[in-house]
Amino acid sequence: MHFTSETSADGVIERTFALYDVTGVVWSPASATDPAPLVLMGHGGGLHKFATALVARARYYVTTCGYAVASIDAPGHGERPRSAEDQAQVSRMLDARASGQSIDAIVTAYNASLAERAVPEWQATLDALQTVPEIGSGGPVAYTGMTLASAIGLPLAAVEQRITAAVFGGVLVYDALLEAARRITIPIQFLLPWDDAEISRRSGFELFDAFASPEKTLHANPGGHHQVPWFETEDSAHFLTRHLGRGRPSDEPTPEGPVVR
Amino acid sequence: MHFTSETSADGVIERTFALYDVTGVVWSPASATDPAPLVLMGHGGGLHKFATALVARARYYVTTCGYAVASIDAPGHGERPRSAEDQAQVSRMLDARASGQSIDAIVTAYNASLAERAVPEWQATLDALQTVPEIGSGGPVAYTGMTLASAIGLPLAAVEQRITAAVFGGVLVYDALLEAARRITIPIQFLLPWDDAEISRRSGFELFDAFASPEKTLHANPGGHHQVPWFETEDSAHFLTRHLGRGRPSDEPTPEGPVVR
Repeated sequence: MHFTSETSADGVIERTFALYDVTGVVWSPASATDPAPLVLMGHGGGLHKFATALVARARYYVTTCGYAVASIDAPGHGERPRSAEDQAQVSRMLDARASGQSIDAIVTAYNASLAERAVPEWQATLDALQTVPEIGSGGPVAYTGMTLASAIGLPLAAVEQRITAAVFGGVLVYDALLEAARRITIPIQFLLPWDDAEISRRSGFELFDAFASPEKTLHANPGGHHQVPWFETEDSAHFLTRHLGRGRPSDEPTPEGPVVR
Repeated sequence: MHFTSETSADGVIERTFALYDVTGVVWSPASATDPAPLVLMGHGGGLHKFATALVARARYYVTTCGYAVASIDAPGHGERPRSAEDQAQVSRMLDARASGQSIDAIVTAYNASLAERAVPEWQATLDALQTVPEIGSGGPVAYTGMTLASAIGLPLAAVEQRITAAVFGGVLVYDALLEAARRITIPIQFLLPWDDAEISRRSGFELFDAFASPEKTLHANPGGHHQVPWFETEDSAHFLTRHLGRGRPSDEPTPEGPVVR
């Protein structure tokens, strides 16, 4: 891994990096004195590591929770060239959507193919990031991301023991994701757009049910695939803080164990 | 309204009160210097204003958010004598449950009858509490409570304009509650026990869908009717803080408006 740029603004250091052909970015607190918990943040399909909403969430986690946040471009996304085969899949999907046909089979094949490549890329990125002094190798790690980022994050979390909490949701569900969910036991916050025109509620419930995690919470909000309200970012920060430590919410007095209400 | 006792512990002043035959309690910050936002907190069926979990939530809101929290006994609950008619309903419900029959019709009639009496009691309590200097008449008011407390709180919030945010959930759904929900437009956090043996998920979805509120979020957790995890109390504090102000979460930088993710 080598860093390719470094800037600093509003208390956040932003460094881009390259690891072989994987392009990424890591944001960290400018004022950090000891290693920060690390949040791996995936981007949605067709987007990239600098997608506006992703950057807003990342900076919020850094400034509010004191975390380091890393994102990498998925294969064929962002700065990474897209193969002819990947481009053909994307074109087929756009054509199907434009003509009112189901895109499920195409998205399933494409997402599964991307995940197969992206999981080892995330693992190599995590190996490399943990050699960075501001992050270190001993701290807690979480993964967050909806849609394509969940299609990649689910199989990643199923095999990567360093990830100890995750935020998923809004993803087209297929068998490999259900199988991954059944192997996941870490705390999960699961975001379900209540009125997604292309992904059924029932499939979201099925995926939520599949997680083996004793602690999992489904958050449903009115609106479509891309309409998750900002306060879910705040809520995810509280969720992460409960499990990774740091930040304001961990300063609050928390009674032990579940309380019947 | 007259106060019947006052104690103080761990930064919380606890005062019991009576208003005609209604018995209640209000908790407020010992260190408050200006009027506090007010949370009205209902109790579950068969419980009372000093139920252990209710008191834990109330004290958490007071110490974490700086709120005043008030609870009153529902008719025939806590310190209030139960009428022969109410007792007959309760006995019928317990008999039906013991013999494996549906309790829905009995609970519907009983809860609706309690709500009809409790709504004006809550309104009179709110009138009286707003004359207390530490609370005042100008501050924001919220309502929280599941099960019976939702059966009462829904028709209350439908008619009481002073309530500007509410937490509901885990309630047996009947037509009058759906009708109340359709009149409610304030922000709602809706808690749905995912594995409730007596209340179907589908009826919970129907009630969630019925709220006219532009901002409403459903939180589902594994477990039965009485197994809502403690972190939902923390999450509800963040929700209330977004809408009532005060407390730590409001100190966090919050970008304007919804952000697509």
